[in-house]
Formats: sequence, structure tokens, C-alpha cells
Amino acid sequence: MLLLRRCHRLTRLGPLNTQRHQAAPAVASCAVRLRSGGSSEDQRSYQHAHGPSWRQALAGVLAGTGAVLAYGLHHHKAEQVDTIEKASALRIFTQEEVTGHRSLEDGVWVTYKGAVYDITEFVAMHPGGDKILLAAGGDLEPFWALYAVHKQEHVLEILAEYKIGELRAEDLKKQQSVKSSDPYSSDPERHPALRINSLKPFNAEPPPEILTDSYITPSAIFFKRNHLPVPQVDPDSYRLHVEGLPGGALTLSLKELKTRFPKHTVTATLQCAGNRRSEMNKVKQVKGLNWGIAAISNATWSGARLRDVLLAAGYGPDVAKRACHVQFEGLDKDVTGTTYGASIPLNKAVSEEGDVLLAYEMNGEDLPADHGYPVRVVVPGTVGARNVKWLGKIIVSAEESSSHWQQNDYKGFSPATDWDTVDFKSAPAIQELPIQSAITVPADGTAVDRSSEEVTVKGYAWSGGGREVVRVDVSLDGGKTWQVAQLRSSDKDQAPEASPPPGRAWAWKLWEITAPLPAEAQELEIVCKAVDNSYNMQPDTVAPIWNLRGVLSNAWHRVKVKIREDESEE
Amino acid sequence: MLLLRRCHRLTRLGPLNTQRHQAAPAVASCAVRLRSGGSSEDQRSYQHAHGPSWRQALAGVLAGTGAVLAYGLHHHKAEQVDTIEKASALRIFTQEEVTGHRSLEDGVWVTYKGAVYDITEFVAMHPGGDKILLAAGGDLEPFWALYAVHKQEHVLEILAEYKIGELRAEDLKKQQSVKSSDPYSSDPERHPALRINSLKPFNAEPPPEILTDSYITPSAIFFKRNHLPVPQVDPDSYRLHVEGLPGGALTLSLKELKTRFPKHTVTATLQCAGNRRSEMNKVKQVKGLNWGIAAISNATWSGARLRDVLLAAGYGPDVAKRACHVQFEGLDKDVTGTTYGASIPLNKAVSEEGDVLLAYEMNGEDLPADHGYPVRVVVPGTVGARNVKWLGKIIVSAEESSSHWQQNDYKGFSPATDWDTVDFKSAPAIQELPIQSAITVPADGTAVDRSSEEVTVKGYAWSGGGREVVRVDVSLDGGKTWQVAQLRSSDKDQAPEASPPPGRAWAWKLWEITAPLPAEAQELEIVCKAVDNSYNMQPDTVAPIWNLRGVLSNAWHRVKVKIREDESEE
Repeated sequence: MLLLRRCHRLTRLGPLNTQRHQAAPAVASCAVRLRSGGSSEDQRSYQHAHGPSWRQALAGVLAGTGAVLAYGLHHHKAEQVDTIEKASALRIFTQEEVTGHRSLEDGVWVTYKGAVYDITEFVAMHPGGDKILLAAGGDLEPFWALYAVHKQEHVLEILAEYKIGELRAEDLKKQQSVKSSDPYSSDPERHPALRINSLKPFNAEPPPEILTDSYITPSAIFFKRNHLPVPQVDPDSYRLHVEGLPGGALTLSLKELKTRFPKHTVTATLQCAGNRRSEMNKVKQVKGLNWGIAAISNATWSGARLRDVLLAAGYGPDVAKRACHVQFEGLDKDVTGTTYGASIPLNKAVSEEGDVLLAYEMNGEDLPADHGYPVRVVVPGTVGARNVKWLGKIIVSAEESSSHWQQNDYKGFSPATDWDTVDFKSAPAIQELPIQSAITVPADGTAVDRSSEEVTVKGYAWSGGGREVVRVDVSLDGGKTWQVAQLRSSDKDQAPEASPPPGRAWAWKLWEITAPLPAEAQELEIVCKAVDNSYNMQPDTVAPIWNLRGVLSNAWHRVKVKIREDESEE
Repeated sequence: MLLLRRCHRLTRLGPLNTQRHQAAPAVASCAVRLRSGGSSEDQRSYQHAHGPSWRQALAGVLAGTGAVLAYGLHHHKAEQVDTIEKASALRIFTQEEVTGHRSLEDGVWVTYKGAVYDITEFVAMHPGGDKILLAAGGDLEPFWALYAVHKQEHVLEILAEYKIGELRAEDLKKQQSVKSSDPYSSDPERHPALRINSLKPFNAEPPPEILTDSYITPSAIFFKRNHLPVPQVDPDSYRLHVEGLPGGALTLSLKELKTRFPKHTVTATLQCAGNRRSEMNKVKQVKGLNWGIAAISNATWSGARLRDVLLAAGYGPDVAKRACHVQFEGLDKDVTGTTYGASIPLNKAVSEEGDVLLAYEMNGEDLPADHGYPVRVVVPGTVGARNVKWLGKIIVSAEESSSHWQQNDYKGFSPATDWDTVDFKSAPAIQELPIQSAITVPADGTAVDRSSEEVTVKGYAWSGGGREVVRVDVSLDGGKTWQVAQLRSSDKDQAPEASPPPGRAWAWKLWEITAPLPAEAQELEIVCKAVDNSYNMQPDTVAPIWNLRGVLSNAWHRVKVKIREDESEE
């Protein structure tokens, strides 16, 4: 068998004992404690702790793309077993038996291409966190269709370690008759210029050198960050549900959203929490998509103000006494029906100065499919992850969203925190992002001619929370000396937008500087750092802000450029 | 003459030609251009440019203490002259002649102890900026009584360079008959534990090691930052004037302020923009008081909400269409009657969540004299300089305060900006401060015993704009490895204050960590860095954030501590 053959190639083999699923494994890097509940002989004699330390160890990355890159990093402490035992150990299981193993207490079994796996021990090591439990008792195929990154040889090798037998032939036949279609088959076409970080779900960024060619990023090259397949939403039957307010549930059609509420337009920059993650990966590998510097873009958004919709649904000052959060649910969902979700603080949602939109237009046109058609939330100044696309439901609540992405992802930690020690409850969900800037031109590793005598450096700068960028300093010598760049807040041929009111600077600034080439230098280390109007500044280096999820990567940006001496000289 | 003798000791002598004030000097580092206005022979044949570059060169520090320290730094480009000319060159001037020279156009003359000085050329070099013009045409004595730091030998030496003659004897007699009393004679008594940075005006900070002994800083050791003498205010005749609102001027007695408006209490940390300036001075000298790490303190403030008072004075949403700022004038004033002043954005002032107070109590008692008795502004989350003490007037306005401290001070610049190139209009007045933290225990240069096996590190952390500190990382090895400190937001024997609403974390957090002494190390380089809930982080090093005024010094704080080996061992 293919899997078996792969299995033989593994240098460190996991347990493949048929009795293993009835034994008491020491779950790697998880606290294991006996629970007080009685356990009969029919039940498994061990139970895994479900307290905070267990949850911590499961602390997740986005289930899916990029995460698997980190498999190699992860402790893999399964015991060595004698490979000779394997072949004789394989048993035949019914689908019913597999379905009976859907929890850490009962064991976590899955099937894949007719084989049965007990992955109980692996759960704590899954780079995608506890989302793996959604597959428990069933077949992996539909999940891997959703998170295509799993279809790699080393993932199959890891899986092979946990094989305990084969699925009964007639159950396999039944399984195969339910053809799982590709959930991404109806994803839209994308612009070929995009640099793709993952195809399924689709995640891509524009080339940096074109990013700052336009103050308003054209929608086609605006960075795409999807967690799930793009849902197909019929605008006529689309309904937005608003819950948790004294007025009772409010349901709005797209037409009602557009006509009942004034249309409000905001130019706002969105940035992924993982922008510039690749620089953290160079320090020490992290989990997540390996974004460059262009998981940030700027657009003009139009829609109803969330504030107005909440007022229409009965929001009043009394609500703030019991509720602190506004949750959003997307219409994008995984095979279990779990939707993407996030929340923002209520005060941001209802503030007249918060400018939170239920946007139905981007850059003057209907939202593109990749950006949330027909309606998305735009939360200016706030991390991309809270700007929920394909918005289905709004819930005003005392609690933050319980979604994986709010609770166990998109949070920042100390460089000292690793996957064994991380406590996701100890850090706040990222909302406002810190001061950021990067150099888009010239690109790292390129060269400038000595004869050109000057070098032009361009980039972007932005800060979260509506804090306006007030200065960008640029160095050509690695940070020893600095020059102040020119800032602009419009396209060059247009008048600059009016200065934003205090605390409402939602859009980035583009910057540029043309400086003489230093006479002596053979190479330039170009560095930029920005300052916002709270005078927050970027940290100098990456290592001290490194964190296990590779988020909030906002150290000075550095590119090295060679100076090519003019050969015609002399 | 004493001044002349001092003058002889100077290695670089300025011009001492009697005709000098009629010649056309090249004002150091100032653009000089002819003005279009006619100039008769009686008038001076040159006029100084008053355009932006002139103002830039005058860009100021706080008139007063600390600034003089920077004299040595400043370019001093006055021409060399033959010292022999001097004695014969001295002339006798009348007070009327002196009084006729009160501007850069007419020349700037002053008297001091009977001598007359033409300091026109010096104006651009005055570390205290253009406040020097207030003394024009008159005697320096009352100003130097106000800013006692001038009474140093090297200041007299500089002054001597500009001597042009003597004051007529009868005018000197008249001047002397107007005895200038010490404007600081009624300043209050202060706690002897304070470390004094300047006596007149009084500026002092507590010793760092006691700063973090209490979550609420006792008023007596709360850092003091006065710009002028402490005014004597009679609580019965005290009136607060509110202007610029549709209701017309509103005047409130202290009793009215206390009884007409609900009493609101806020725990808020105040920090001077110059806190930790001494670390910038170590990189390259800056202008200003040489604050250590304790120009920050935390108190409980009670008073009327500014919002409520503005509403009572007629504030309504229409006002926001024409006004953007709320100006404050103190009752502290210099000899010309110029008061301390500052302004904050209107939206901060009127926001329900801004918590801006007209405070009449500090830590449960009447405000102490040094902290603004009877009424001061407390602007939580905002730099100390805008928290105007001894509040006399509130003006709602389209413009920021025109005060020196708002316009030409308390702003941040690039490390590349020097006094020749600074344009104070190019940077926003500091309002919210960036993320900050420092180590109060152990002190730099102290030692810990090897036998103690552990070291306990303590400090404070705070961020501006109501952003809550969510983590403090501590390193014992100069920043290579990190540990997460314990945070607290109350005194140890008290229950922690309830978590603040989002965006309203006005008070600092104290932090502490006890860590094993590294086995190999002989010295620890202890470093701290804090993170706020917008995930802003402190920059790694001081040099890249150095600025000519030494404000916003928030790089990682570092202290070195020796490990003393236990001699009884072996």
C-alpha cells in the first residue's frame, strides 16, 4: 500500500499498534489529568484534560494554508515502535465504529482514502489548532478540499503514523458515492499580477512595486485574504440579520440596506495582521501565510453606517450597559457549516467618529466577489480580520465573538512564548494595528547605477486607530543617518484629500524621497520608519517583536541595493 | 569691569564695536533679506526677514531652565573683532534710547546691571527661543529672576560679547529704585525627597525606587513641572472664564464649579514630554530639563467634567463645525503678563469617553499649590503640558493655542532635524503620548549578590490615548531573551481596579518579575519594553528617535547591574 510504503520511509515512526487506541497515550506537550467523572471498562480508561492548559496547547493558527509549513517545527513526540508489528496489526473497522470516535475522551478517528487513523495524539500537535476536531469520526477528504495545503507528501507521511486499519469495503463504497466537489470551484477569476500565497483558500498580494503606484489601490490588485471558499450570494435573496438589540431581530434586504440608510463613503486602508510575516520567518519560523510587504491596500468604501443600522435596530445608551461587543458572521463556511466570524468593541461600532461601514461598494463599484459581495464590514483603523466579508449576521453582545479567529488567533505574544506555553486568553484580540511602513521601491537585491547619481525611494506608511502618519524617516546607511520623506495622501495628479479630523486618519500615506547616492558606498541598506500623531514609532528590529503567529510585524523595513559602477567611466 | 574681564577670557569674541548696531550683521543661520519698506538714514539700514526660516531659527525650547545647558552646543557665528576697540567703544545711552530698540527691525537692546547690550544677533541663537524678545528694550533682571538658570558665569560671558555701552547714571538709579522682588518667593514648600532639576521655576521628580512603591503616587512626591512661579490664588475671588461658545462668556466661581456640575473622578497618569530626556542627552545633547525616568506619576483626580461645563456654556454639535480646539490659559504668568497656555482637540474635550476634568481635587484633597490650586485641567492620556494648572480661562476656538508651548515647543522631529533646519509648523503639537515603560528597581550601577540566586525587577508602563498596557517583556541579557512580567493596576493590598472600558485606560500599570540569576553572567543588562492594546511597542534604541528637544524618549529602558560573587564561598 502506498501509505504503508510512505510509512516505511519515515525515520521516526509513530505507534502503529492496533491496541494503541485502547491504551493510554501520553499526549505530547499536553497536561493530562484524570477527570472526576467515572470511567467504566467500556469507556476509555484515560481522559484528556480540557482545562486551560489543554486549550493552550491547541492554540491555533488559521486552519489551513501555511500552517502545514510549520509541521516540521512542531514537537513530534510519538513513541518509536517496531515496524514489524505493523502489517499484522491492521484491522477492518466499520464506519459506525469510526463515527463513534469523535472526541479526545473517546479518541479521535478519521478516514482517508479507505484507511482508518487514530489521530488522538496528534490533535495537540496540529498546527491548525482544534479545528481538526471538526473532522473527527469522518473522512478527511472534504476538509482537505477546503484546506488544500494538506495535500502534500509530508502531511501524508505524518498521517501514516497514525494508521490503525482499513475501512470496511462496503462503507468505503458508500463514502465514495458521496462525491465531494471542490468547494473552491466557484471562486472568481483573479488578476494574474497577484502573488499567490495560497490558492485554496485564495490569498494573494500585489507586487510591491505596483502597490504604491496608486493612492487608491485598484480592486483587482487589492490584497486578497480569504479564510474559506468565496460564497455565492444571490443579491435578491440576500438578507442581513441584526440581533441582540431591544428592537428585536432586524432583517434587511440589500435594497433596504441601500435605501433606508444614508450612503457614507470612507477611504480606508486595510492591512492583514500577517503583513510582513516573511520577515519574522527569517528570524525563526512562524505559523501562517508567508506574506511579503503588500498584505495592505487602500480603497474607497461606500455603504450604510453600522451605527445607523444599529440605531434602526433599537440601539440606545442603555444597551452599552449590558453589551460591549458587536459580532459579525460571514456567509463563508466550512464543511461543518462553521462560518468566519469576528467582533469589534461596541463603542467603535456606534461612535459617530468610528466610521464603521456596512459597505456595498468598493472604489465606486459593487464589491467584488473576493472582497465580500454583496456586503462586508469595513472597520477603519482596525486589523483586516475584523472587516468581515459576505456579511450575514450582526449580533450585539456582552461577549466577543467565540470564533477561532477572535479567540485563538490574531493575537500578539512575547518572543518568549511558544506553542507549549501560549495562553490565548492572556492576550487581547488584535483590533487597532500599530504604526507601520515599508519600502516598495527599490526592491531588495536590485541595483542602481552610479551614473544616476541619485536614488528614489518609495513606500507606504499607515497607523491603526485613525492615528495619522506625520513623518517617515528614511536612511540609506542602515539607520545611522536619516532624511525626512515627502508624504502624500492622494494620487499625484489629484488634489490631496482634506486633512482628516483628529482620530479619523483611516487611509495610508504614500511617501517618496530622492537622495544623492553616497560617494563611498558600494551598497545601500535602505531603511524606513514612520511616526504617527501619537508619536508612536516602529521598533528597530524584528527579533524582539517576533511572535509564534508572525503577526504585527512592523519593525523598520530594510532593503539592500547594490550600486553598479558605470563601466564606461575611466 | 567684571563683564569686560569675563569678556577677555572668552576664546571666541563677538563683535564689540560701538558702530555695530548700525552695521548690517549677517545673522547666524538666518535668512537675511531686504524688506520692501523704505528705510531712512535714521532707521537701521537692514531688516531681518520675518518669513518661516527666521521663525524656524527662533524655534524654541521652554524659555528657562535647562535650556542654557545647550548654549555650548549652539552655533555661535559672530565675527571676531579686535578686543582693543572695546574699551574706547563704550557709549552712554538713555533708557529712552534703549526702549526704542524692541524688535529685530529696530534692533534688540537690553540692560543688565547698568550696562547696555545689543543682542539682536543673539536672538536667533537663544536656546529659549523668541521669548527673549519679551525683554527687548528693558532690563534683564526681572526675567532672570523668573528663569534663574541664566545666572551662571558662562551666560554672563555670552552677554558680555554684546555690550555696546552703559546706561545713563540717572536712568540706572531709576531702574534700581524699582526693586524687583523674587517672583518665586511665595512658591510652596516641597518634599525633601524630590530630585530637583530646576528651582526657579520648580521642576523635580521623585527617586525612581520610591516611584513604584505605590500605585497612586502621593501628591507630595508626584513629579512637579512648573513653567513659571506658582501663582497665589484666592479661592473666594477665583473665577473661571469660559469663552467662544454660543451662550456667550460664562464665569464660574470655585463654588459654582463644585456645585453646579457632578463630581467625576478619574485615575490618570501624567507624564512630561521630556521624561527620560537624560537618555537622549547621552546620545547627543538636547535642550531641556535633564529628566530621569520619573517625570511620570499617577493620581486620582476629581472635578467637573470639561464636557459638562462646555455644555453649560452653550456647546452644541454646531460648534464643532467652526471650532476644533479648546484652549486653556493658566494664571501663572511671566513679567510681561504672558500666561502659560495650551490647547487640546475639541473632540477630546467634549467626548463622553474623553474624561477631561476641571479638577479641584488630587488624591482626595484640594489640589496642592504645585499641582494647580484651585483648579487645573486633567486631560487623561495626553502629555502633561496640556494639563494646564491654575486654570484661568477656557476658549473654544478654530485655532490651537498660540502659546509658545503649543506652537514652538513640545513637538517631535526627526533625528536629522537641527536648530538650523527645524520648522515647528511641520510637526503636530504632542497630544497623546506613545507607549512607555521603565525599570525603577534595581537602579543602574547597583549590584545583586550571587547568593540571592534571584533578581527582582520592577517598573512602570503606560501608553497615551487611553491605550491599555497589555504586556511588559523583561530581558536580563540586553534584549536577547525575554520574560513576561506580572502587571498590576492597584496597590498590592488592594483589589485591582476594574478593567477600564476600551480606549479609557488612563492609568499606568506597575510590573514586577523575579527571575533566577543567570549562572554564567557577571553583569546583567536589564531591559524592559511594553506593549499596549493597539500593539504599539517601544523602539529598541535611543539614537534613531533622538530629537533636538529631547522629547518622547521611549526606547527600551536599560539598566546594568553587577552580580557580586559571594566571598564566603569556596
